[in-house]
Amino acid sequence: MSDATGSSVNQLAVENVQLVDVVTQQLESMLAVGNYDAVKRLLEPVQPVDIAESIGNLPTNLQAIAFRLLGKNEAISVYEYLDTATQQSLLTRLRSEEMREVVEEMSPDDRAQLFDELPAKVVRQLLSELSPDERKVTAELLGYEAETAGRLMTTEYIDLKQAQTAAVALEIVRRRARDTETIYSLYVTDAGRRLTGILSLRDLVTADPSARISDVMTADVLSVSTDTDQEKVARTIQRYDFLAVPVVDLEKRLVGIVTVDDVIDVIEQEATRDLYAAGAVQAGDEDDYFTSNLFTVARRRVVWLAILVVASFFTSEVIAANEEVLRRVVLLAAFIPLLGGTGGNVGAQSSTVVIRGLSTQSISALGPIKAVGREVLAGALLGILMMVLVVPFAWWRGESALVGLSVGFSLLAITTLAATAGAGFPLLFDRMGLDPALMSTPFITTCTDVAGTLIYLKIADWLLTNLPQLQQVGGISTHFLPFAVS
Amino acid sequence: MSDATGSSVNQLAVENVQLVDVVTQQLESMLAVGNYDAVKRLLEPVQPVDIAESIGNLPTNLQAIAFRLLGKNEAISVYEYLDTATQQSLLTRLRSEEMREVVEEMSPDDRAQLFDELPAKVVRQLLSELSPDERKVTAELLGYEAETAGRLMTTEYIDLKQAQTAAVALEIVRRRARDTETIYSLYVTDAGRRLTGILSLRDLVTADPSARISDVMTADVLSVSTDTDQEKVARTIQRYDFLAVPVVDLEKRLVGIVTVDDVIDVIEQEATRDLYAAGAVQAGDEDDYFTSNLFTVARRRVVWLAILVVASFFTSEVIAANEEVLRRVVLLAAFIPLLGGTGGNVGAQSSTVVIRGLSTQSISALGPIKAVGREVLAGALLGILMMVLVVPFAWWRGESALVGLSVGFSLLAITTLAATAGAGFPLLFDRMGLDPALMSTPFITTCTDVAGTLIYLKIADWLLTNLPQLQQVGGISTHFLPFAVS
Repeated sequence: MSDATGSSVNQLAVENVQLVDVVTQQLESMLAVGNYDAVKRLLEPVQPVDIAESIGNLPTNLQAIAFRLLGKNEAISVYEYLDTATQQSLLTRLRSEEMREVVEEMSPDDRAQLFDELPAKVVRQLLSELSPDERKVTAELLGYEAETAGRLMTTEYIDLKQAQTAAVALEIVRRRARDTETIYSLYVTDAGRRLTGILSLRDLVTADPSARISDVMTADVLSVSTDTDQEKVARTIQRYDFLAVPVVDLEKRLVGIVTVDDVIDVIEQEATRDLYAAGAVQAGDEDDYFTSNLFTVARRRVVWLAILVVASFFTSEVIAANEEVLRRVVLLAAFIPLLGGTGGNVGAQSSTVVIRGLSTQSISALGPIKAVGREVLAGALLGILMMVLVVPFAWWRGESALVGLSVGFSLLAITTLAATAGAGFPLLFDRMGLDPALMSTPFITTCTDVAGTLIYLKIADWLLTNLPQLQQVGGISTHFLPFAVS
Repeated sequence: MSDATGSSVNQLAVENVQLVDVVTQQLESMLAVGNYDAVKRLLEPVQPVDIAESIGNLPTNLQAIAFRLLGKNEAISVYEYLDTATQQSLLTRLRSEEMREVVEEMSPDDRAQLFDELPAKVVRQLLSELSPDERKVTAELLGYEAETAGRLMTTEYIDLKQAQTAAVALEIVRRRARDTETIYSLYVTDAGRRLTGILSLRDLVTADPSARISDVMTADVLSVSTDTDQEKVARTIQRYDFLAVPVVDLEKRLVGIVTVDDVIDVIEQEATRDLYAAGAVQAGDEDDYFTSNLFTVARRRVVWLAILVVASFFTSEVIAANEEVLRRVVLLAAFIPLLGGTGGNVGAQSSTVVIRGLSTQSISALGPIKAVGREVLAGALLGILMMVLVVPFAWWRGESALVGLSVGFSLLAITTLAATAGAGFPLLFDRMGLDPALMSTPFITTCTDVAGTLIYLKIADWLLTNLPQLQQVGGISTHFLPFAVS
């Protein structure tokens, strides 16, 4: 392997997009002419995740050939990164003996995830081929609910005993280093497998070789349960800058650990979910929007759209019911979208910051009552600022003080209301134990629209009935002191 | 420290909210009566980040006392987690000798971040008190641009030489374990400090003690430059499941490493930025929305609101210019918000998935042209599905076939247009090297509103001029075959 190629591959790796394209292209042409040595040389400096993506891009008939050219350890790493479709196709295309070995050696958590998506028949077949130990572990992981620590954890960790010396423990770490996911966090358990302490490999290598583990370890262990929500697990690792967190069952026995690499994916997934909720798109199981077909795309969007359209029917009803006011002052109609839009935007702003604040827990220091209070004040303040901009325009374009004043008063009411609803609903949902992102931004926007339109037309109606002379007061461009000339 | 308290503290830690409240409360009452031993016992099992938050919540006069009760190593960890205001207040309240020691021992990256926010005078003072080595490192980090690998990296890492044996290397790791941020990723450099290889501590402990580092290390190193954008650094660590990535300068000399814990914060920060953009809120430097004052809140929201309001003026103009159609068929006005809202929602959906796809790089496999093409088709498909729901309602509520058909045709046009704009603009911005999230969802929503209203009123105008008999066709409730009776 020339140094030049190695460094150029790694330069591309940071950009990642072109790297996969380049590797896929070269891989395909090398495989087409059967130049297998070149394939091996090509893939040597490439990271497993990039190899997996390149193999996934190959025509199906070449995937199995490329996969077979990998060394055994690399094959296992690459297989874990492949998308489910390619994983399944390789399972059927390669000899079952070869694949049994790969599946046997996969991390238990990655294997459980694969089994979760395979047809039941294939899972039964594969399970029966696993060694009893691996079979037990996989069945156990599959027994935990999705999106919990139990499902996310790996059962491969190193556990030590309090009475061992640092030297003995280091020897255990050495021996088990190859087949555990991490050797950097070490766990101490008692005879009943209960977790009694943790230490890092850093603690171990710096300890006096003759020191007892009980003297080196930290006894105050922070652990999560098998049923802890994955988001809470992620927040724990993030907050405390851990590399891993131990998972215990109801009897406080250590059953697994969750590592930081899985947690990054959870944080990303939760952010996508929040964003999709803000955009009225239903989140999929994975971040697979751009690989799913058009009907899946439509299905993930049509439900929210339909709900929002039906909610809009109420706005239409409000306008139709107040047809008379509009008939008398047609130009009032010109500002319905502006008011609805501004209310919607203020509501969207408030719900965005509150939903994100709940996700990142930055809102917790303030408390829900104060948070809503702040948003109400912010809404009113923004309403006043917008009035300065909007009232002169409405007065002039609506060709009367009636339109200008109706727009002005309702603008203030709408922004205040929108901020209240935008902050209040997600917090209420959170209190009720529901996902605050369910109270999605577009839903708040649409509700604000109904209420805002009603307020606007009622204010206009009241002004028209009680101060009809306002209608005669022309645009601001002709009368700077409109009340004086009425 | 009783075992019971330890485990209850750690149970609270996963929930984190109550833990900080409980600790703050107990801390305050213990400090008030001067029971310092109780404080020490209370804080023993608590993680540094929770201690930092609790101290941050205390009245200013108690903060310094609480901080002084911490052990030296713990004080340094806690100080790194304190918010900037508390960091500054401690700097002024405590004797400069005590603080010099804390600042001297901070991680270089955390120290650079602190200095970045301190007044220039304080920075000069502190810099002059640092040891020459630490001063040089801090000045260097401060020289890199914000949000780059250079600013994010720490200069504390372990570098080895190719000729060393594993036993010698392990001894170096042991000696330096206490003062480096991570000992789990090890770096091999040549005489010119150029990065020639990496190995993990796992590789080292499993290696034959007499093996040379050159035989144990991986020579194909993936590194980033000091000026690599922090998001790209984060994506690299996330994609390859690294614990750290090396940072090199233009001459390929190793100058630092970025560790996974910093990267999680970057991913979170970028997700918040995307979400805020989607909600038309300007992102702050930190995730500090709920701690900033009301005027900062208004400032971060008013600019976008004003832009959107001015954009709404165009919708008002379109309606005012088409006053005549509305005067003749007032009920047409009832569906303007519905059409604008639906267009806005479809546009928001498209821009949400595209902006997120660009952030997570899941869109890259598809390419921009195909991505827009898919969205256009999705928009049209959604438009047709919504027509089924909306046309009968509009026909009935608008009391004529004219309204029903105008709404139907424009609905299809608007959803298609909204999906095109929602997908196209962010991709265009990305191509032009601008942040796609700048083309925020509310902006697309508002633009769709203008175009949608224009299309709707023009279609209605055309139908009214060319097929005036449609106006006479009553609601769908009275005539099931409206064309037959016209």
